[in-house]
Amino acid sequence: MELYNRTQIQNVVTLDQAALEAVEAGFRALGQGQVVQPPILSMAIEESNGEVDVKTAHIRGNDRFAIKVSPGFFDNPSIGLPSLNGLMIVFSAKTGLVEAVLFDEGYLTDIRTALAGAIAAKHLSREESRRAAVIGAGVQAELQIAALKLVRDIDTVDVWARDTDRASAYAERMRARFPDLTVNVQSDIKSACRQADVIVTTTPSKSPLLDDSHLPMGVHVTAMGSDSPEKRELEASVMTRADVFVADTRAQSETNGELKAWAGSTPPFEVRELGQVIASSQSPRNRADQITVCDLTGTGVQDTAIAGFALSHLTPAP
Amino acid sequence: MELYNRTQIQNVVTLDQAALEAVEAGFRALGQGQVVQPPILSMAIEESNGEVDVKTAHIRGNDRFAIKVSPGFFDNPSIGLPSLNGLMIVFSAKTGLVEAVLFDEGYLTDIRTALAGAIAAKHLSREESRRAAVIGAGVQAELQIAALKLVRDIDTVDVWARDTDRASAYAERMRARFPDLTVNVQSDIKSACRQADVIVTTTPSKSPLLDDSHLPMGVHVTAMGSDSPEKRELEASVMTRADVFVADTRAQSETNGELKAWAGSTPPFEVRELGQVIASSQSPRNRADQITVCDLTGTGVQDTAIAGFALSHLTPAP
Repeated sequence: MELYNRTQIQNVVTLDQAALEAVEAGFRALGQGQVVQPPILSMAIEESNGEVDVKTAHIRGNDRFAIKVSPGFFDNPSIGLPSLNGLMIVFSAKTGLVEAVLFDEGYLTDIRTALAGAIAAKHLSREESRRAAVIGAGVQAELQIAALKLVRDIDTVDVWARDTDRASAYAERMRARFPDLTVNVQSDIKSACRQADVIVTTTPSKSPLLDDSHLPMGVHVTAMGSDSPEKRELEASVMTRADVFVADTRAQSETNGELKAWAGSTPPFEVRELGQVIASSQSPRNRADQITVCDLTGTGVQDTAIAGFALSHLTPAP
Repeated sequence: MELYNRTQIQNVVTLDQAALEAVEAGFRALGQGQVVQPPILSMAIEESNGEVDVKTAHIRGNDRFAIKVSPGFFDNPSIGLPSLNGLMIVFSAKTGLVEAVLFDEGYLTDIRTALAGAIAAKHLSREESRRAAVIGAGVQAELQIAALKLVRDIDTVDVWARDTDRASAYAERMRARFPDLTVNVQSDIKSACRQADVIVTTTPSKSPLLDDSHLPMGVHVTAMGSDSPEKRELEASVMTRADVFVADTRAQSETNGELKAWAGSTPPFEVRELGQVIASSQSPRNRADQITVCDLTGTGVQDTAIAGFALSHLTPAP
């Protein structure tokens, strides 16, 4: 059994095509019905404003599967600790023995989440997409754009965040990271989205931020912020206006994502799943002026895929 | 963060009163409504005849909680590996940071399961119980009796197992472990149970083994074998004949334990929970001739309790 820390994992897993293909293969297997993916285990630790989620999935035929444990303790920053943490345990799918523990402190979650956004854009956004709007200015605002650049030639980013100082700091970080990228801080969501080819929402908002009036013709929207029963980023009008709606998994979108706008009823549009879109090898977008929306809540198959990818690139201690 | 292996954990956690009290305190807190305990996460790995379960619970006010991952791969013995494995991860309940990983390989599960049986007998069996029947001859057949001896002066054990050679080997092991104990191998369940004060069923049976004709007056039955949707050890007649029926948790007994005899309907008897019995400080047994039954499916609060107990006795490496 091997133990790896965050630094070791960061040295071998980055936002690149190989990692993207590993996560995409996981989604494809899910779409082909080749994945066992139980519901998320979730537990609140109310007195510490904390929660812990456990996700897992097994891709049939794979030699390994991972179980990810993600604690989120949202008062941590006040004592100088990060909110998000966690680890992944990799098991042999033949014997159930532990092969490795990846003490990634949430790094692999950041990566596979960003890659899911890129995968959604690869299959749903217009190929000639150049301009992205990002709502929010945190870690995922940065990683989503970095990942998006793997699949689309993004040259301009418009950022909006509730806190303008954070948006400005984000713009500076992004300009430093991508010298050729134009990054504009916008004063409202409408301005940020006006010329967007791709919109990515990356906030922990508990009330919808984006509505149909923000959607330019032909835009693709990835909403990756909502991942729990109390969060929502999209007005129902975004989904009803869209020509194509895709969820990473329908069941999780209903409980933790944007489909909870139709809790207990049937949404008035077709719901596709990302894995099925990938497996069909044909984008549901068939015109440049269509609007596509993808809701990402985070799936166990992404965790199993990225953990397997990481482990295949890590070298055991001698 | 500390890592501990099975040997280190075995050196500090054994079947004794202190460990029993730790697990009992967990159940008591559960009975007092002081525990957050989400449903078990369970995933099948069909092509390897395997499954993996994740259990957790948080006792409000505790500094730590544990998440346990238990793989069971039932073809492992054919390649010289144990079926059951696993580990427990202990988190700070203040920050969500990992405090320790207990690579116990299922040892703490064995211990807390045996202690739950002892706790059930402590609160439900007659104080003067001396003779125990054990159905099954595996690890829990041994540990359940060893734990039972912490709370009742057991001097005689009658064992029955489907495989008589295994029953004989069990008897030899128990005589070696407890020189003062009389251990009889019985040729059928009826003979094993005829004079029992306590009956413990410890099998992975998928069809009921014990029925009401096996129950002497005043007996207490602990059924700890059934812990998944396909297993059952008790005929419905055992529960309908009993004066008192207790489950570790009602919801799990309905899906994974003996209450699945009444799937989709209401059982014709009162269902108590073990934690509530403990918290009430009064046994529901009020006559020596009553029959009591306790169904144990295994709960996350036991895992959090025993992991916390273990960690408080482990010494970090210098």
